[in-house]
Amino acid sequence: MSTESDADIEDELARERLIDLAAEFYDQFAEGTVPQMEIPTRTKSNIVFDEDENVWVYGDRHSTRSANSVRGAQKLLKAVYTIEFLADQLEQERSSTLRELYYLSESWDNERAQFNDQDESNQLIEDLEIVSEVTREDFHMRPEESGATIMGPLYLREQTRRGEREIHCQKDVGEGGYQIPNNPDTIEFLDNDADFVLCVETGGMRDRLVENGFDEQYNVIVVHLKGQPARATRRITRRLHDELDLPVTVFTDGDPWSYRIYGSVAYGSIKSAHLSEYLATPAADFIGIQPEDIVEYDLPTDPLADSDINALESELDDPRFQDDYWTEQIELQLDIGKKAEQQALASRGLDFVTDTYLPERLGDMGVL
Amino acid sequence: MSTESDADIEDELARERLIDLAAEFYDQFAEGTVPQMEIPTRTKSNIVFDEDENVWVYGDRHSTRSANSVRGAQKLLKAVYTIEFLADQLEQERSSTLRELYYLSESWDNERAQFNDQDESNQLIEDLEIVSEVTREDFHMRPEESGATIMGPLYLREQTRRGEREIHCQKDVGEGGYQIPNNPDTIEFLDNDADFVLCVETGGMRDRLVENGFDEQYNVIVVHLKGQPARATRRITRRLHDELDLPVTVFTDGDPWSYRIYGSVAYGSIKSAHLSEYLATPAADFIGIQPEDIVEYDLPTDPLADSDINALESELDDPRFQDDYWTEQIELQLDIGKKAEQQALASRGLDFVTDTYLPERLGDMGVL
Repeated sequence: MSTESDADIEDELARERLIDLAAEFYDQFAEGTVPQMEIPTRTKSNIVFDEDENVWVYGDRHSTRSANSVRGAQKLLKAVYTIEFLADQLEQERSSTLRELYYLSESWDNERAQFNDQDESNQLIEDLEIVSEVTREDFHMRPEESGATIMGPLYLREQTRRGEREIHCQKDVGEGGYQIPNNPDTIEFLDNDADFVLCVETGGMRDRLVENGFDEQYNVIVVHLKGQPARATRRITRRLHDELDLPVTVFTDGDPWSYRIYGSVAYGSIKSAHLSEYLATPAADFIGIQPEDIVEYDLPTDPLADSDINALESELDDPRFQDDYWTEQIELQLDIGKKAEQQALASRGLDFVTDTYLPERLGDMGVL
Repeated sequence: MSTESDADIEDELARERLIDLAAEFYDQFAEGTVPQMEIPTRTKSNIVFDEDENVWVYGDRHSTRSANSVRGAQKLLKAVYTIEFLADQLEQERSSTLRELYYLSESWDNERAQFNDQDESNQLIEDLEIVSEVTREDFHMRPEESGATIMGPLYLREQTRRGEREIHCQKDVGEGGYQIPNNPDTIEFLDNDADFVLCVETGGMRDRLVENGFDEQYNVIVVHLKGQPARATRRITRRLHDELDLPVTVFTDGDPWSYRIYGSVAYGSIKSAHLSEYLATPAADFIGIQPEDIVEYDLPTDPLADSDINALESELDDPRFQDDYWTEQIELQLDIGKKAEQQALASRGLDFVTDTYLPERLGDMGVL
C-alpha cells in the first residue's frame, strides 16, 4: 500500500492544469481552428481594486496570444515547450529557478522555442500562472531572491527534500532566526504562543527587537521583510494571519517607498495582482514610522527629495491609500517636508522603540 | 563562586583597549601636550600587499588626528563620546548598529560631539578598530547587512543572548539553511564530516547545489556569499579554513565583478585592510566560472560592456591578480569579449553543474 502526501497531490494537480493547457491547443488544432490563449491584460489600466477582498486583481480586459502570426506562433511554441519542461519537473520532483529556465531553453531541440532573454521566460511563467491558476511555487519554480527570516514563539514543521524538520523559531535557531524557504507552503504550523505578527522592514531594527527580547516579552512573531518583501515572505505572513488568526502589523521607515512596502504586504502589487488572494494580507495594519510620529517624537529627519514628493503625490491618487488615515498622513508629510528612518528612534535611546514607541503605537491600534 | 565566560573576557578586553585610548588623551592633557591620535592613512596609495600572509594591509604612512584645530578637537571629542558609549555598551552586554550609533549621538549632551552624518560615525568606528586593534564585532557593533547562510555537514554551538543553541547545519535546519549570525565568533564548531568548503555567489546556484544534494554527496559545507560577502560571511569562511583545516573554494559568475568577490574572500579588501588577517582566507581557490570554461563548455554568454572591460584591465594591474593564472584568464576574457553567469551551466541541463562541472573543476584543482 502506498500513500500519497499532500505535496504529491499538489504536484499532480499542478501538472494536470498545465497539461490541460497544452490539450486545449491540441483540441484547437484538431478542430481546425488557429490555437490561441486568452490572458488578462497585465497593465496598470487593467488593475482593479476588489472592494470585498481589499486586494488588487486584474480587470475584464483580455489579450489573445494567437498562432495567426509567426511571432504569435512562436510564443505558443515556447509555451508548449515550457509546459513540457514544467510537467516533467513536477513528475521528477525537481525544481529550478527562473534564470535556469531561461538558460535551459538553449538545450531545447527546436531553436525557435528558445527564449531570447530572461524577461521573455519570466513573463511566460507569469502568463502560465494566470491561465492555469497555479502559482509559480506550485510549478516548483524558485525565485532568485532569498527569503527572509522569522523569530518568535512559533513551532513549525518544514517538509524538506531530506525529510521533515521540526523547528521552534526561538528555541531551535540562532540569533539570525529561522530562514523562510522559497516555498513556504512546505511549512505546517504546529503550535504557537503568539499574540500578533510584526513585519519589520530593516535588518537593523529586526536585530534591535530581537536583542531587546521584544518577541519574548510581547509574544510576537517578528518577520523580517528585508526591504520590498519576497513572495515567500508575503505568503507566510498571509498564512500566519489566516491560519493562526493573528493580527498582522507592519513597521517600516517613514517615507513613501516604505508605505509601498506596507502596501505590498497588505494589498498586493500590480505585478502579482493574479496572486493577491494568495500573497496579500488585507487586514495588515501600519504601525509607522508615521509622519505624525516624526512630529510627536521629534525624530531626526532628512528633507524630502523631489522623487519622494512625486511618490507621495502618486500615493494620494492611489486607491490603495485613499482613506482618511493615509490622506491625512501623506498630506502632513508633504507639509512638513521630512522623512525619518525606523532607526531614528535610537535618538531617544536604544530601548525607546521597545519600551515606549511600539507599546504606545500597538496600544493605539488596539493590538496590545 | 562565579565563572566568567570567554565572551565576558573578550568584552572586558575590548573595553580596556577602548578606555586605554581615552586614557592616552587624558595623559596627553596632563602632560600639557595637545591630545592626538595616530592612524594609518586609509587610502589606496597606502595599501600594501603582505607577501607572507598574502593579504592586503595598511602601509607605513600615518595621519594624525590632533586637537590643535577646532575641527580636529571636535573629531577627538566625538571619539571620546563614542568610546564612552562603546564601553558602556560592553559593560551592559548590549549591542547596536552603526546607524543606531549615528542617531543615538543626537541624545548626547554636548551638541558638538554629535555626528553630522552616518559616514562620519562609520569612519570613526573604523578608526577605533584600527587604533585599538579590536574589531567592530568585539565592540558589539552590528552591521545593517544581513548574514548569509550555511548548509553542510557541520555541527555547531551558537552562543545567543538566550542561551546556547546546538545546530546541525543539515539536520536541524530547513531548506533555507543555517543563518550566519552578525558576529560569527559566537559560534563554536563542535563536529563535522566536511571535506571542503564551497562559497557560492548566487542564491539560485546555492539552491541548485542543495536541491541536488551536492553537500551530502561530496561532504561539502556550502556557504552562500549573496553577492559581495558581508564581514560575517568572510569571517566564518576563514574560521572554517583555519580551525577545521578545510580547503576553501569560491564559485561565482564569470565576470570581473565576481572575480572581485573571490578577491574579497581570498585577499581582503582595501576598506577592511586592517582586518585582513581576521577576514581573508588567502588559501581560498577560485573554481569558476573561468573564461576558459566559457570556451570549453560553450556556455551562453553576454558581451562584455565597456565597464566590464575597464574592470578587467584594472584587475590586470592589481597585485592581487598578478599571477600567471589570472593574467591568462583575464587576457582570454578580453580576447573573447564575453562573460557568463553561474546559472548558464543550466544550458547543459540542471544536473550538469553537480554531475560534471564541479567534479571536473574540483578534480583539476586537487580538492576532490
